[in-house]
Amino acid sequence: MKNYKMTVQYDGTRYDGWQRQGNTSNTIQGKLENILERMTEHKVEMHGSGRTDKGVHAKGQVASFKIRTEKTDSEIMDYLNHYLPDDIAVTALSETDERFHARLNAVRKTYVYRIHNSSVPNVFEQRFLYTVEDELNVDAMKTAAKLFLGEHDFLGFSSVKKLKKSTKRTIYSVGVERFGDDIVFAVTGNGFLYNMVRIMAGTLVEIGKGERIPESITEVFDTKNRELAGITLPGKGLTLLSVEYE
Amino acid sequence: MKNYKMTVQYDGTRYDGWQRQGNTSNTIQGKLENILERMTEHKVEMHGSGRTDKGVHAKGQVASFKIRTEKTDSEIMDYLNHYLPDDIAVTALSETDERFHARLNAVRKTYVYRIHNSSVPNVFEQRFLYTVEDELNVDAMKTAAKLFLGEHDFLGFSSVKKLKKSTKRTIYSVGVERFGDDIVFAVTGNGFLYNMVRIMAGTLVEIGKGERIPESITEVFDTKNRELAGITLPGKGLTLLSVEYE
Repeated sequence: MKNYKMTVQYDGTRYDGWQRQGNTSNTIQGKLENILERMTEHKVEMHGSGRTDKGVHAKGQVASFKIRTEKTDSEIMDYLNHYLPDDIAVTALSETDERFHARLNAVRKTYVYRIHNSSVPNVFEQRFLYTVEDELNVDAMKTAAKLFLGEHDFLGFSSVKKLKKSTKRTIYSVGVERFGDDIVFAVTGNGFLYNMVRIMAGTLVEIGKGERIPESITEVFDTKNRELAGITLPGKGLTLLSVEYE
Repeated sequence: MKNYKMTVQYDGTRYDGWQRQGNTSNTIQGKLENILERMTEHKVEMHGSGRTDKGVHAKGQVASFKIRTEKTDSEIMDYLNHYLPDDIAVTALSETDERFHARLNAVRKTYVYRIHNSSVPNVFEQRFLYTVEDELNVDAMKTAAKLFLGEHDFLGFSSVKKLKKSTKRTIYSVGVERFGDDIVFAVTGNGFLYNMVRIMAGTLVEIGKGERIPESITEVFDTKNRELAGITLPGKGLTLLSVEYE
């Protein structure tokens, strides 16, 4: 068996997220495993760097898998792209160290959440945008986003219920920028809890609307109370941009 | 009755083109007229600058229509954007001279045809791209595109069958540029025959593949023979960029 690392792009609109759920599910992982199983004629288990939810997109999801094959790296990549639907693509693939594991070895991930801030829809990119018609105060959002930096317990910014594992995470960088009618929230960290980026983005939108103050973020860290954070924005605005390894 | 000029954007993927065809058709014009008829409670006839075919997109289609209303320009625009589906948007709307007619007064139109030139799909923009996997010779395409400039009889570059009206058109500017994996063909002219841009683009792709020489364009002008031009590329790669008026 050889071990492979690959980078995958997808428009998540039509899918129930990354992770395979049983045999009949409509997931990105399921589509990829099915094609590799047809190619190799053996069972394939793929490890993504992490799940992405229903409707969430990826520009640089990373996955690893072990297969038995005589094909070259570029032949495997071409085979996958030939059989994948139009909204999933493999953009890089290479044989790698047998110990490489896309989830366990990931050290940093970057997500972007895109907000379309206009009453005039963007018809060409609406699949990747969450729309807020009223003008948002981007300066307030920038100030607030900086409060996410560093190590914090993000339990209040997540939909996590069980408390067995640590809910501390470190955020290395955040940015909020307006590009024309779009506001992009980008965040890099060592890991993210369930729904964490969507709740962080929802909290920033409420700050941009003037419905809450930037300091309310600190209160959520102190209390770990999900009720005190903003709403969970829809998956469609979220894209996993990149995953880094040592 | 007041006369209005408006600019419309659409992702044409789901539609049978711009022009209303009977009462049951799924067209951009049909969607817009229906909403204005509901708003005004009278019949509305809209004039687009020209038809766009099934699957063709527009960033700056222009249309005119006469309605009876007490609403302000921005109220009409908001009303339309509220009831339009996500893939159609009105980006500008204003009352105009009563003699303005979006088709009869148009003096210049610009179209772009986008080719994705890679074996790795672009999952985020595939709805707006036609894919050619083998690398195209962009320099040959640039040289060839210049032969379209000026006034010519474009009958051979069209799917027009009847010969009653003139098939002469003037091309003011053309451009072929590579942006990463995408090749964009942009063309501005005083008017375009049925399927003309798609056949011009198909001819350029065949030149880029080395299947024909740039001078074959001159032969199509001389013979007016559709058989000697390239294939008609699919509508999905085509976008009406802008329409100009005096």
